[in-house]
Amino acid sequence: MTPREPQQLTLRRIPIDSSRENVVFLHADCVAFPGLGFRPLSKVQLSYDHHTAVGSLDIVRADWLGANEVGVCEYMFQRLGLPEGTLVALGYPGILHSTNSIRRKLAGARLTRPDFDEIVRDIVDDRFSKVELTAFVCACAQNNLDRDEVVDLTLAMTGVGQTLDWDGGMVVDKHCIGGIPGNRTSPIVVPILAAHGLKVPKTSSRAITSPAGTADTMEVFCNVELSISRMKEIVEAEGACLAWGGAIDLSPADDVIISVERPLNIDSQGQMIASILSKKKSAGSTHLLLDIPVGPTAKVRSMEVAASLRREFEYVAKEIGLHIEVMTSNGEQPVGRGVGPVLEARDITAVLENSESAPPDLREHALQLAGRALEFAEDVKGGEGYGVARELLRSGKALEKFQAIVEAQGRRDRAPDLGSYNFEVEAKRDGRITRMDNFAIARLAKLAGAPLNKGAGVEVLHKLGEEVKQGEPLLRVYSTTPAESALAEDYVASEKAIVQTN
Amino acid sequence: MTPREPQQLTLRRIPIDSSRENVVFLHADCVAFPGLGFRPLSKVQLSYDHHTAVGSLDIVRADWLGANEVGVCEYMFQRLGLPEGTLVALGYPGILHSTNSIRRKLAGARLTRPDFDEIVRDIVDDRFSKVELTAFVCACAQNNLDRDEVVDLTLAMTGVGQTLDWDGGMVVDKHCIGGIPGNRTSPIVVPILAAHGLKVPKTSSRAITSPAGTADTMEVFCNVELSISRMKEIVEAEGACLAWGGAIDLSPADDVIISVERPLNIDSQGQMIASILSKKKSAGSTHLLLDIPVGPTAKVRSMEVAASLRREFEYVAKEIGLHIEVMTSNGEQPVGRGVGPVLEARDITAVLENSESAPPDLREHALQLAGRALEFAEDVKGGEGYGVARELLRSGKALEKFQAIVEAQGRRDRAPDLGSYNFEVEAKRDGRITRMDNFAIARLAKLAGAPLNKGAGVEVLHKLGEEVKQGEPLLRVYSTTPAESALAEDYVASEKAIVQTN
Repeated sequence: MTPREPQQLTLRRIPIDSSRENVVFLHADCVAFPGLGFRPLSKVQLSYDHHTAVGSLDIVRADWLGANEVGVCEYMFQRLGLPEGTLVALGYPGILHSTNSIRRKLAGARLTRPDFDEIVRDIVDDRFSKVELTAFVCACAQNNLDRDEVVDLTLAMTGVGQTLDWDGGMVVDKHCIGGIPGNRTSPIVVPILAAHGLKVPKTSSRAITSPAGTADTMEVFCNVELSISRMKEIVEAEGACLAWGGAIDLSPADDVIISVERPLNIDSQGQMIASILSKKKSAGSTHLLLDIPVGPTAKVRSMEVAASLRREFEYVAKEIGLHIEVMTSNGEQPVGRGVGPVLEARDITAVLENSESAPPDLREHALQLAGRALEFAEDVKGGEGYGVARELLRSGKALEKFQAIVEAQGRRDRAPDLGSYNFEVEAKRDGRITRMDNFAIARLAKLAGAPLNKGAGVEVLHKLGEEVKQGEPLLRVYSTTPAESALAEDYVASEKAIVQTN
Repeated sequence: MTPREPQQLTLRRIPIDSSRENVVFLHADCVAFPGLGFRPLSKVQLSYDHHTAVGSLDIVRADWLGANEVGVCEYMFQRLGLPEGTLVALGYPGILHSTNSIRRKLAGARLTRPDFDEIVRDIVDDRFSKVELTAFVCACAQNNLDRDEVVDLTLAMTGVGQTLDWDGGMVVDKHCIGGIPGNRTSPIVVPILAAHGLKVPKTSSRAITSPAGTADTMEVFCNVELSISRMKEIVEAEGACLAWGGAIDLSPADDVIISVERPLNIDSQGQMIASILSKKKSAGSTHLLLDIPVGPTAKVRSMEVAASLRREFEYVAKEIGLHIEVMTSNGEQPVGRGVGPVLEARDITAVLENSESAPPDLREHALQLAGRALEFAEDVKGGEGYGVARELLRSGKALEKFQAIVEAQGRRDRAPDLGSYNFEVEAKRDGRITRMDNFAIARLAKLAGAPLNKGAGVEVLHKLGEEVKQGEPLLRVYSTTPAESALAEDYVASEKAIVQTN
């Protein structure tokens, strides 16, 4: 008996789409059990050559799985990248030392670079189940990562993904910390910067806790899943792109962490900084303009907190060798009219086309950001960026650049439709609008189905300061399915103060 | 189109044993999708009459599930308790408001009784996935539940389970907070108390973070899964029982919480107090003796912390109307010789049989506890309990009572064997043993397969203060499978200081 000889089993793809985690299926009569023992909650490890993958074990008592086979769910099959029929070894994963670090962090200890390296490596290697992953996110969610821990986490996350190299020279990026529904400025800012000749290989995330990320919204126009080589071709030709970062694997740990942040609606400061800056670093950016919206229902609620967050970003950026400019903006209410991919795409098109219906706040915010970022360029003096940006927008050069990027990435044949189920949220009485709850509007759009159903979302019909009459519609909520529409209606009924009037 | 009309589907039992959580399987062509929309990570809700259950959604593309069917995993099928073929309604669960409480707790807020009620209700109704569950456990794991929060959590947990009623009179229980491997005193203490005439309807947990709980070890002797009516019959006849609390559903929320505490090895103070006291309250206990072991690798490491924990227990017990006596004990090293169900059962038998080979520390500790608990009885004066306990043990009355309880619960035809794979941990040099790491010994026994493989565990061959020679065996590690034996060997190789000599 050679205890260390792992069992060889035949790989089977099981047509079960479990979006939760890697799942391994073994038959109750599997030949490997006498050597393995059975434990519920167990994780098992598949090995092939030097690659290993860990999954949660499900025991099957059905004839669609053989005693000499190891089944894996669709998600794990894709990640393994091995053909069916491959002989893989089955065993237990080694001892997971990084759970000790998580426990120490929960108890308030400082973690070191090796601790973070180990945790991030275990995340990327799928050695964490949702339980360990959630515990790590929660342990960091108390704002108790100090700035050097954030530097270490950032470097650990940068270390495990792909990195892009742009052969020297300035590489510009812009980023918003999020929290303001409809604040979709990148598809306007990036074309303006590229139209001026800056290099802006923009990679964006899909929504974490919001009803749409830039990647979700850009997907209304075109393909966003670019390979690294295709992305480089596009940036060489057009100076810019608007791609989904997840497809390029810039920060694979972050993509996994997001899978638990989303259901929990948690996006902690330390993890936010590490997530943003690790991706910018991996993407080869040299200059970053960061937007921090401030308002009573924004992620950042006071100028004091914004100033502190700015210092943290500046500290970490400096440590990892990234030039950063931080600006604050008005985060009192949603930006633009639409919240959700299709509705936001409509606003963006209107701004780029200089349409009279373009939301003025979205246009103005995009110009402010583009103006500041243009001043990274040697030929734009301090204070002159805004004027240059406005002219690039007015002249149609930004629109032209946007269309060129969309064509290069692969224009969608047919844009998705707005959801066909909708209802309105009405003013309860006459008055002036005094408060709009960003969080509640985002949650409403998500319950309605955004961003996964692109046609779902919320149309904001009135803004702060406007006078409305009782019964006048304030929001229009779109869904693509009746069940989600009902869920959104339930939420409106349970929340008293999505939009307040005086 | 009536959006609120849920889809009716035919219930199918899917022979997949997922120990992770409720899993619902729908075919990719399921007739319900047009009305539901598809979202990864989605939870769906099954409803039948007034009962609902929530599960994670897996999408199946195989012919073993029909488009009009809804499949559920074995775990969920058992929990539903409905026959296959039942028409059940499929929809989304309502909005999960309690995640807001979890987020607030993570941010340091106080929770109220209604918050805890809502969380506990959502846990029991399976509305939490492992993500929310882990977040709740971690949010409470920072010792930041204040004592009134612990009272509220305790009452919330008591409120959702079965409660036992013993028709007045004194009902005695004893409990140890755990952390000391091999410290299996209940199977000795309970028969002593019952032999004196006290009513001790003992319910125990299975292991949370340890290599064996009392229920795991008792199962070596007899059945521990008793119905409430059977438990009452046994207690009426014998005055006591030693049953698994989980089978009686005294604190169903706790049983779910344990499923994430176990992989994380977390057992926080507030949750520990709520878990213990909610079960005692539900079990109808009036008097509780609580044992807090103290030692450098115990859960409680100083007398100061023990005193503080004692005050917390006393406060919460008083608030929920339970008489409590707290005693501290020596938690410097494992108690007895065996760690793991079969090995512990051997120690217990030796003590009850007054065998010369009985581990003296286990015997002494059990007598101390029994002595204190006997003083709850009106006919035992303060200070006399120990002598009464010793006589009940010496005379064989305790053994007789133990055997009667085992018979009544249903003696096992054949006790499980000790694992056939074993290796020894040897002394690295001559010297006196100065330190034994409870945590490392427990982890070793767990990696070896305990408690799920009852024959797995660690035999402690030498204790603190004993002189050993280089190469002399200190621990013998048993497994029932070669893979687990190898895992335990790897752990020994990676841990330098399981047993230290000077």
